[in-house]
Parts: sequence; C-alpha cells; structure tokens
Amino acid sequence: MTDKQDKQFQKTSLLDKVSRPEDLQGLSPTELNELAGEIREFITKSVSQTGGHLASNLGVVELTIAMHRAFDFRRDRLLWDVGHQCYAHKILTGRKAYFSRLRQEGGISGFPNPAESPTDVFTVGHAGTSIATAVGMALGAAHNRTDEKIVALVGDASIVNGLSFEALNNLGLVKRQLLIVLNDNSMAIDVTQGSMASLLSKVRLSHTYEDVRNTAAMILNHLPVIGKPMEEALANLKKTIRMAISPSRLFESLNIHYFGPVDGHDIGSLIQLFKTLSELDSPAILHVFTRKGKGFSPADTNPCKFHSTGPFEINGNGISAAAGGRSYTEAFGDALLEAARANPKLIALTAAMPDGTGLTKFRETFPQRYYDVGIAESAAVDIAAGLAKQGLRPVVCIYSTFLQRSFDQIFQEISLQNLPVVFCVDRAGAVGDDGPTHHGLWDIGLYRMLPNLILTSPANEAEMHGALRYALSQDQPVIIRYPRDKIPADTEGLGDAPFETGRGIWVRKTDSEIVIAALGAVLAEAVMAVQMLEREGIFVSLFSARFARPIDPTIVDFFAQGKTVITVEDHSRGGGFGEAVLSQACQTAQEKGLEEMKQSIGKAVLLGGEEDTFIPIARRRRQLEWMGLTAERIVDMVKKLISDGSAADLQRREFMRQGKE
Amino acid sequence: MTDKQDKQFQKTSLLDKVSRPEDLQGLSPTELNELAGEIREFITKSVSQTGGHLASNLGVVELTIAMHRAFDFRRDRLLWDVGHQCYAHKILTGRKAYFSRLRQEGGISGFPNPAESPTDVFTVGHAGTSIATAVGMALGAAHNRTDEKIVALVGDASIVNGLSFEALNNLGLVKRQLLIVLNDNSMAIDVTQGSMASLLSKVRLSHTYEDVRNTAAMILNHLPVIGKPMEEALANLKKTIRMAISPSRLFESLNIHYFGPVDGHDIGSLIQLFKTLSELDSPAILHVFTRKGKGFSPADTNPCKFHSTGPFEINGNGISAAAGGRSYTEAFGDALLEAARANPKLIALTAAMPDGTGLTKFRETFPQRYYDVGIAESAAVDIAAGLAKQGLRPVVCIYSTFLQRSFDQIFQEISLQNLPVVFCVDRAGAVGDDGPTHHGLWDIGLYRMLPNLILTSPANEAEMHGALRYALSQDQPVIIRYPRDKIPADTEGLGDAPFETGRGIWVRKTDSEIVIAALGAVLAEAVMAVQMLEREGIFVSLFSARFARPIDPTIVDFFAQGKTVITVEDHSRGGGFGEAVLSQACQTAQEKGLEEMKQSIGKAVLLGGEEDTFIPIARRRRQLEWMGLTAERIVDMVKKLISDGSAADLQRREFMRQGKE
Repeated sequence: MTDKQDKQFQKTSLLDKVSRPEDLQGLSPTELNELAGEIREFITKSVSQTGGHLASNLGVVELTIAMHRAFDFRRDRLLWDVGHQCYAHKILTGRKAYFSRLRQEGGISGFPNPAESPTDVFTVGHAGTSIATAVGMALGAAHNRTDEKIVALVGDASIVNGLSFEALNNLGLVKRQLLIVLNDNSMAIDVTQGSMASLLSKVRLSHTYEDVRNTAAMILNHLPVIGKPMEEALANLKKTIRMAISPSRLFESLNIHYFGPVDGHDIGSLIQLFKTLSELDSPAILHVFTRKGKGFSPADTNPCKFHSTGPFEINGNGISAAAGGRSYTEAFGDALLEAARANPKLIALTAAMPDGTGLTKFRETFPQRYYDVGIAESAAVDIAAGLAKQGLRPVVCIYSTFLQRSFDQIFQEISLQNLPVVFCVDRAGAVGDDGPTHHGLWDIGLYRMLPNLILTSPANEAEMHGALRYALSQDQPVIIRYPRDKIPADTEGLGDAPFETGRGIWVRKTDSEIVIAALGAVLAEAVMAVQMLEREGIFVSLFSARFARPIDPTIVDFFAQGKTVITVEDHSRGGGFGEAVLSQACQTAQEKGLEEMKQSIGKAVLLGGEEDTFIPIARRRRQLEWMGLTAERIVDMVKKLISDGSAADLQRREFMRQGKE
Repeated sequence: MTDKQDKQFQKTSLLDKVSRPEDLQGLSPTELNELAGEIREFITKSVSQTGGHLASNLGVVELTIAMHRAFDFRRDRLLWDVGHQCYAHKILTGRKAYFSRLRQEGGISGFPNPAESPTDVFTVGHAGTSIATAVGMALGAAHNRTDEKIVALVGDASIVNGLSFEALNNLGLVKRQLLIVLNDNSMAIDVTQGSMASLLSKVRLSHTYEDVRNTAAMILNHLPVIGKPMEEALANLKKTIRMAISPSRLFESLNIHYFGPVDGHDIGSLIQLFKTLSELDSPAILHVFTRKGKGFSPADTNPCKFHSTGPFEINGNGISAAAGGRSYTEAFGDALLEAARANPKLIALTAAMPDGTGLTKFRETFPQRYYDVGIAESAAVDIAAGLAKQGLRPVVCIYSTFLQRSFDQIFQEISLQNLPVVFCVDRAGAVGDDGPTHHGLWDIGLYRMLPNLILTSPANEAEMHGALRYALSQDQPVIIRYPRDKIPADTEGLGDAPFETGRGIWVRKTDSEIVIAALGAVLAEAVMAVQMLEREGIFVSLFSARFARPIDPTIVDFFAQGKTVITVEDHSRGGGFGEAVLSQACQTAQEKGLEEMKQSIGKAVLLGGEEDTFIPIARRRRQLEWMGLTAERIVDMVKKLISDGSAADLQRREFMRQGKE
C-alpha cells in the first residue's frame, strides 16, 4: 500500500463517522481537511453515477464544513443562492445515504429543499434570492426578538443579479447580525460577465495566497469581539486594510461592512472568521476565494463542462461522457448559425447560459454578434429591445423558468412597442431532474396575454429551422419554445411545410369524431398514440397546432364540425394552449351565432399540468406521464372518451351499434 | 404694472415663439432661463386643469432645455426612465397645444410615446429601463456604424432598481458614447430608500452651491475635448476631484466614468457639459442636482403630494384639491390599520408607493412594522418571504402593473414554499389616465397558474375588510386585487357574508337561463345591468364570484343546470377568470361524465379585455366600456343573447312562445 492509498483509506473512514453537523465538533483542523477531501471524493464518485452539479460543489466543501462548525443550523439559518452547490451541506445534514438517488424520482433534490431537512430553509434554484430572503429573515428575527444568526451564501455570478443589488441596497433596514458570504470562484475574465465580475477578477489576480492569508489574520486580530468596542475596532481595521482595487470601495459606499478577500479553502481561519463576524450587530459581507472543481482535475480545468453534468466515467481522472441523441438545444444552435449566416443583422443574447441554450458555436463563429449579460435576464430583454429599435434582429436565448424574470420587460419594452425580438426559450415544459424550481410550465400562459406576441413551438429538427426562419421574418415579437429533451428519431417528415402565422398542419386526417391538437415537442407522443390506436382499429385525427398564439382557426372549426378536441401541451393546463383554444372557440361561436358549435366546445379535453401541483423530480418522460401527455396516457384518454360514449371513433361506434341491433 | 408682472409678460411671449428644439438655437442663456420659467408656469397651469405629474416635471425644465440645445433628438436618442417627467420635452417637441387634453381620451399621454413624436423612443412608465435600453441602442449604433448620441435620463429613485443595476453592470459592453444623466432630486433622507439613496443624500448635504458650480467648471476645464488625448485628461480630472463620500467611488469601482455633481438648473453649464461629455467614446454618468417642484412653492415643499395629482386650483400658490369619493385604496388603508391593530405580527411592505397603495396612515401608526424598499418590487417580495418564514404576516402592497416585476419571486419564494404572504394589489384592471403602461390587466392570468395561490377580489368597502381578514387567516398566499377607482356608493349591503375559500355569493337568484358571474369591483356594473334589465322585464341571475382561484363549484354547476354563463372581469380575457371557469367546467364535466353539462359550456360569454389591444388613455369607465364591462354593455350582451335565441330569460321566452302559438 502506497502512502497515498493509505491516506485514501483513512479518509473514507472519517466520512463514515460524520453524518450530522454535531459530528464535526470533535474533529481537529487536520481531520476537517481530510474530511473535505473525502467529501470531495464522495461527491465526484456520486455525481459520476447519477449526474448533477459537480464543479461548484467541489469548490465549497471547506466553506460548508466551516459554516457547519461555526453555526448551528438547527436554529441559525443558512440561505443558499441558486443552491446547486449544496451537496456537501446535504452530506453533513443526514442525507449522505440518499446520494445514490440524487435528482431521481423519489430521491433527493440537487437543490435545497425544506422537505428533506429543516436545515434547508427555502427550496431554491433561481439566482439572487439569498440576500433578499436573508434580509426578510433578519427583520423577522428582530421583530421576534430572537438571536439566531442569519447567513446568506451567494456566488459571484449571482451577486450581479438585479435582485441581489436591490437587497444589498436595502441591507440598511437590518439593524442586527446578517452575514453575507460572497463565494467568489471566478475563474478568468473571459467567463465572467460585467463590471462587478471584472472588478472581482482584478482583485483575485492582484492577490497572492500570502495576501489572502494576511487579510484573514488581520480581520481576526482587529476583531477579537468580546469586550472591545466594535465601532473602534472596525475603524482601525478599515484603516489597516488598504487595497487599490478592493471591492470594499463598492460595498462600503453602499454602507455595507466588507471583509476580505480570504481563502475559502482554509477551514481553520474560516471557522474563526465566521464566529467573529457573526458577533457583529449589523450586516456584513465576507468575501472568500474558492476554486470551482477543486480536487477533481477535469472539473478544475473545465468547470463549465462540469457545471451540470450527466453521469460520466472517472478514467484515472479523465472523463468520457455518456452518449446521447441529438437535443432540441443542439438543433437550435445549428438553426441559429444557419440563420446568422443568412442575416448579418442577427444578434444573439443570453443571460449566463450560453452552453445550456446552445450558443457555444454561435459565440465562436460570431463573437461580435454575441452578448452574454450574466445572470441579468431583465436587462437582457431590454438590451434586446434597444437593439431592435436600431433595426437589428436580436435573438434572446433564456430558459423558460428564468425568462419569468423578464415578464415585465417583455410586456413594456417588447409587446407594447411591438419590437421584432425573437425569444428562443429552451427548457420549456417539464424539465426532468432539476425539478420544481426549473420547470418551464407557465410560458404560454404568461406571454399569450400580451398583445403583439406570437408563440410557436417546433416539433422536430426541421421545424426548429422553420420556426426560426419564420420568426426572423416577422415584424413583431415571436417566442419559440422547446423542451430540454432529445428530438424524437421518427417524426415522419413532419415540418417540411413552412411556418405561417397561426397555422398548424395535419398529421393524420380521418373522419373520426376525435381530433387531437398537439403543440410542439409532445406531438411525438401524440403520433405514437395515434399509431398505437390504429393497431387496435381506432382511427383518430391528429393536428399539429404549431402556434399557441394566435390559435389556428382550423382548430376552432373542429368544434363547428362537432368534434371532440383533445389538446396536448407540455404546459400547465391553467393559462395554457388548451384554454386559449376553448376561449377562442366560445368567442367565435358567440360572434357567429353558431348554436351547434357551442354544444361541442364543452366536450374538449385539455391535457396538461395540474394547476395545484408542483411536478416532482423525475425523468422528463415520467413527468409527462403524470401530466397525461405520454402516448400511453393519450391512448387511455381516447379509449375513455369512446367508452364513455362522449365521443367515439366513427367506424367503431357504427360497429358497436350494429352489434347491439 | 409691477416689475414682476412685466417679466411675466415677456416670458409668455418667449414660449409663444418656441415649439420645436430648433427654436432654442437663437436664444441667449438669459432667454433660455426665462423660457424655463415660462415652461414651468405653463406646466403648473396646465396640470392644475387636467391633473398629471407636477413636481418631477417642474424639476427637470432646465435639464430638458439644455439637452435639446446640446443634442439633436431627431437623430440622437433620448431614453426616459419612468417618463412621467417628460412634459417640458413634449412642450419643446411640438406638443404644447395638446396639453389641454393631457392624459385624456384622444389627447396626449403623460408618458413618452413614439406615436406622438419620433423624439420619444420608447413608450415607458415602469422604472429602471432607460439604461438597459440605452445599452441596447448604443450596441445597435456600433453594429450599424452610426454616430448618433445616446442619452439616458434616470432619476435617483429609478437607479436603485435591479434592472438599472444589471444594465450598469453591463455598461462595459458598450465601447462608444453613451451618456447617463442621473437626475438626483432626493429631497431628504426620510423620503429616499436604501443605501444608494442615503449615499446620494449625504453627497447632496455635503455640497454647497459653490462646490457644485466648481465641479462643473472643473469638468469643463479638464475636458476641452478637441485635440487633447482623452485618457490623460480623464486621469487628471479624477486626480483633481476628490470627495470623501463621492458616488464616484461606487461608479468608478464598476469602471464607469462618473462626473459631478453639478447644478441641474444651470442651463449654460449643462449645455456645455452635455456637449463635452458626449464626445467621450465610452459610457459616462453625469450626476445633476435638481429640485422637485422647483418654482411652484406648494409642489416644492410637498413634492410627494404633487407627484401625481388630479386637477387643482392655484390660489396664490396655495392649492385646494378637487373633491372626490372614497377610493378602494382608502378603504384598504383603513382595513389594513384595523387588521394591524388586531394582529401584532402584521408587517406592511411597499416598493416606493406608500401613498398610492394607501399605506400613509399605517406608516404613521406602526412605523416599526412598515418597510418601503424603494423601486425594488422583486426584493420586496423576497423580503416578505423571509418575514413569513419567521412566522410574521407580511402584507405586500404593490400596484398590479409593477408587481409584474415580481412574478418569478412570487413563483419561487412564495408559491413553491407555500408561504402565507398577502398581496394587496392596487391598480388592478383598467387604470384610467396613466394608460397602457399602467393597466393591471394580467394579474389573474399570471398568478392563477401558480400552485397554492388564492386570488380574491372585493367588490366594496365591507368586502375589502372581509377579504383582508380572510387573507390574513389563511395558511397560504393570498392575492387581493382591486382597481384605482371610487367605491360605488350603492352596493346593497353586499359582502356582509364572511369570505370563504373559493365561495362566491348570490346577488340576484332567479330561474333565468342567464347567470352573470362577476368578479370584484365590476360587480357594481353588473348590479346596475341587472336593475336596468329588470326595468324592462328581464330577470337574470347575478352571482358575485369573489374568487378567481379557486373557482367556486357553484359557478361550474351553472353549466350542469344548462345555464348560459356570462363572466364579467376587469382583466384581459386571455388568461382571466372567465377562461378559468371554462376550463374548470370542461374538466368537471369530463371527470364526472356529464354529457348534458358539456353542451352548455360553449354558451359561455367571457367579458374582458381583448387579447390583441392595448387599451388607450381615457377615463376608467370609458375603458371598461371598451372592454364590454359597463352596465350598458352588459345589458346589450344579455339582450343579444336573448334575441339570438341562444339563451333567454325564462319568463320572457315563455311569453314569446305563447305569443307565437
């Protein structure tokens, strides 16, 4: 056994003994460091099997251990920002055994979740919320006259979000302890965005390891807390720490006590710093440097790739990602490149999600026509509005769930001005293993209310190209939505017809009383359903709606023909495409005085997400099943309608009648 | 004639000669100052007749004149933030004659509007958008290789908004000219909110008029622009200007060139400063001090009161506001006070709209339980979430249109955690003279999609108390929506019954085939409609829905009884209460296999706003008329249904049948 193997063995045995924060209390600084190594190894191994966020979690292991040693989060409160970096925290709070089912149905979430542990305060997943909720909790503690410590852990990518800034600007409301730990893991200037990020990068580059160690020592020397007048100690400290480009200028001008930067991997100092700073009776920021991916070299050198990963193999620290089919995201990336080659006015924008939205190739090919504004979805939309006013063709690429941050800008700067901005909304619909914080189940409902907006949804790769070409040719805003999913292999040549505003296409036209109107990616499920039904001698019609707004008059006409319409959409039923169809049908029937049409509207069946449920973590297709959107569930619904007698396949009903007679 | 009167006379004649920016070119500095006085007088007189925003407009007259003299906004671009301070700009761009119809049907808007003039770039009304759209326009100009100047005018209240910060953080994307004019009119620390505001206040208090004049001179001396290397000049300037608490530390740490503070009423210096700074080939901020309400002493001493005002009388510079009835806002203010007395855990929050949301009495009575976070709607919601986690009962008071900024926070921090936060949403529905930027027509659609949320809407004062009591007793989030309107005088004792989740109340129960289901304030119109119909011998039923979510099963049951249901809501039809009713009815009929019920669902008539129209500026009742929601329009609809034969009052139909036989 080599020395290294020997150490490895000891490490494993340490983590075996630790499953609760209390278990940390007896450990020496050396042991805590060893424990950090073991946790890192555990996370790497675990994520290699289940997939999940890797680099960010490896970076905060020491920080997490130190927090749990310095605070007691059974009563103190820890607010995570985004929260995908909470794995070490989960391991230390009784959830180590559940990591084999991380981000899986019935397993634990990859994000904080109070249902799993009282040490998780909020279920989070979106950025910039930790400081604002911490302010609320601190104000609450003041009202309650309780003295629990409030800690917000926020990364350098999240602190630039507008919500973070609004909260920082209101930090003065808090007249008691509140510690913000700024986890600064910026890797290099080129991956960070904005002035704040480059400020932090400059600070990082100008600080040696020695500087950082000295800063920690200096803070601890000046703030021995007990017995000394704090005001004076703080004043002395600030005189001592002078740094040309320190972020202290930024934070102190907002009247926020700033401390740092310190080493985020030095557990011993961190514990002391946390204890000391938590004695301040006012809000403070502790700026810590950490290294994303620390300890696993592929993640350390390529943290973007290992930000969120599927399962992978650990080959002597190399990796080989598990293979998969072609995704909507990839199809979009290619469609955008094609469009950009044809149109020099096309500009692509994203908000810190270039990889996830398929923009990496575009960024390489057209760096001058690419903007990443960081986690600032609201600003991204308004910048796009400005570009459109100048005659350019901005394409805004933001996940459905994060675009929620921009509803008001899409209302005022896009819809009200009727600007031709194209929104390419990835992660629309059920999102799979990220769970409730990340579903894109409300985008149709949000944007179909706003005048001038067109909403379309491609069903396959050809349609992705068609939809984007169409969108870029419109003189008004267009939203294109598609899921985080593989494109179905067999789409039967669908989508060759060019996109026309508010016009769908027939997939299967029969004389059945039942017509399925499916929107976007779930068309594939409807196609399978139709095929399954055909095998049983049931022939229903299938229409690909393509547009959630405006609604194709063909669909409205189905009611006039007395059909039973089943709408299929990967969206909440509340506010969705199906309700838009119903509403449009009522209005048409009313305006045209079509009494017979009115009688068939109520027969409609709207398949989509339940209004009062958050769809739990599971594989996406399982989530579709819960929403009634898989081929099997659609088949069940068709059969139920037939057996209820509320609608029937014509031939089959004829057959049944003959049987009875 | 006194000297003063004499001057007065000259002034009037100056403004008579100025209607276009070109007209400013021939005027001397003295004349420009006189013109400013005349414009101020014109605005005061005009607003006293029409109502409108006063104090903010009086503050920026010199600033506006200087901008129009230094720039040519036929090609340069001026981006207003919020935009209610654009009156002088409108006067100088050909719209003086239209001020008699300011904020009135067919007249000019109180906000910028490109439909009125090409010098208005965006229709705005919400805060924090100017810097972001300016960044977009500057990037666009760079792509287009054009050299128009881009100017964003942003107030100190707007710059603290998260969107402003996100844009400031991305200012580095712009490698060309972009001038941000920070119009700092903070009056005193107690009316401003947050750290940035107190920083600005400190700067203001520490600067004498002399300092401010010197600063302008210093900037102009150091930056004579032509021929000198700019980098060097900037470096020298920054060495020269040293101020202990200057905001330059804040902005410069974000790598933004900061200049100021300078006097915003010194037209001569401003013109020179604008010309000089517009030669910079990078973004810069010019910080100007102005005085809200300058020149009209009641507005000068009480700018809050004159922020937005109805018509008033100018009595030797005193005022007497036009009288009016009691508003929903006032009713809410009282209901909240009552609730707060009963419940010490109640905390009220707002985002810079204490007056408009009726919180002034609460603030006086319970200063320790009141938080105003400034224009930071997203943070307000997350702070409320933190308070609720601590067991307090936060009540968030934000206008419907501005709460759109918080959709994502209401999703993640409120709905997903199921926290008992109460939202009191004023300005829901058609908003009257503020127009399209301010309507609250999408709140039901937004929030009814989110699990756990309850949506209710009181119809009168008693119901306001009832709804709030109910909301505060729930263990989940509740949204209470009501319009900017007077409470109808006659509400016939409605609303005495306590609020119960998802239960409405009968107002008029008949055996008619027609049932009107009205939500909230527009119930009063429905009551009038029913009375008008009764006078003609038509007796229809009227149900007050009270809840937009969950939908009362009584309403769904109307369809089972074969009724024709008319839904009445002050909301967009798309996504609204009516669609929720339809959807719920379809689902119930489907689940219970009620074939006959299905036949009546399609007969429903949904009254509400059109999906593809922005409702123009007019009085609120006129807007309700356009949406088909006034008593007269409801009567028309009922009669149309009867004459179409699609539904009929039972007795009347009987009568008609007898007649025919």
